[in-house]
Amino acid sequence: MERLEQQIQFIIEIDKLKQVVRQTYVTDASRCENSVEHSWHLAVMAMILAEHANGSDIDLLRVIKMVLIHDIVEIDAGDTFLYDDKHSASKSGRELAAAARLFNLLPTDQADQFRELWDEFEFRETKEAKFAYALDRLQPMLHNIITKGKAWQKHGVKKFQVIEKNRPMQEGAVPLWDYISDLLDYAVEEGYLSK
Amino acid sequence: MERLEQQIQFIIEIDKLKQVVRQTYVTDASRCENSVEHSWHLAVMAMILAEHANGSDIDLLRVIKMVLIHDIVEIDAGDTFLYDDKHSASKSGRELAAAARLFNLLPTDQADQFRELWDEFEFRETKEAKFAYALDRLQPMLHNIITKGKAWQKHGVKKFQVIEKNRPMQEGAVPLWDYISDLLDYAVEEGYLSK
Repeated sequence: MERLEQQIQFIIEIDKLKQVVRQTYVTDASRCENSVEHSWHLAVMAMILAEHANGSDIDLLRVIKMVLIHDIVEIDAGDTFLYDDKHSASKSGRELAAAARLFNLLPTDQADQFRELWDEFEFRETKEAKFAYALDRLQPMLHNIITKGKAWQKHGVKKFQVIEKNRPMQEGAVPLWDYISDLLDYAVEEGYLSK
Repeated sequence: MERLEQQIQFIIEIDKLKQVVRQTYVTDASRCENSVEHSWHLAVMAMILAEHANGSDIDLLRVIKMVLIHDIVEIDAGDTFLYDDKHSASKSGRELAAAARLFNLLPTDQADQFRELWDEFEFRETKEAKFAYALDRLQPMLHNIITKGKAWQKHGVKKFQVIEKNRPMQEGAVPLWDYISDLLDYAVEEGYLSK
């Protein structure tokens, strides 16, 4: 019973991730989304887009697990905006402390399993982690295009920055990078994104 | 490219589920949660609680897929409160129409796959669907207990109704039903839930 109690305490604790607001707007531009909404979206995207991942025999369950839990550390560390280089410098330290506290609420074997998944996502060495990363990059760009560049404009983000920060998603899914690259050209033509 | 375009259109469409508000409060009781937040929570719960599912060799990927997509029909059909018997009578018709429209935005093979997962969840015949259902029942009860019965009290829900509506979760996970049953007794003692 103690094991189940620990599991339930973790399940209650991670509810706080619903309050961590990101810079990305939902598609009707009415509000910013939170990190739970983002994580769910990536998980369903993984189900649909797995066929576009680089490499064969991708372990879909592992990809989905990674995207479901990749942002849990933000409960303590907060969300770090991709284009905020100053804040990004301290990201790793903040998130490591958060991972240590949060995952250790779980029974030891599961704490280890969650930490391993989070490390795999962060280190981005396996094809599953590279694909999960590609989804994590693709989703906010899609939302920006649908909302006519709302978050890009709010933060004065330019096309060269979008390319520079998101190009590594090619390592996980070349077809998805090719697809979004064309949409970035379109976003500049339409005035959603500055050159 | 047409296939990827269809997939992306579905991914954009399901963003609307972030706007479907449920009757369950988030654990700090500041607001109600939406169906995407609920679905994410169930998916992470599946990762953690799978060992408590009835039966052996449960297909965790299948459970996670079901809970991730089980509420997508609410984009058209709205959320139906478990204790609202009047509204529940029309639920099936509304949701079937929604499933037909929404899943068919996907390429045919994936539309079929999503429909099959949704049907499996709804029919509740496999051990995976029964376990997914148990999680779907457990999560709002946990939230009610943490928020001192906020949603129960708002809607005048009594213990016998909670028992009646949620007891079928035993078919998916006896230990989780036993656990929450004790907490329901506690909720009555504390005055969170009326007898």
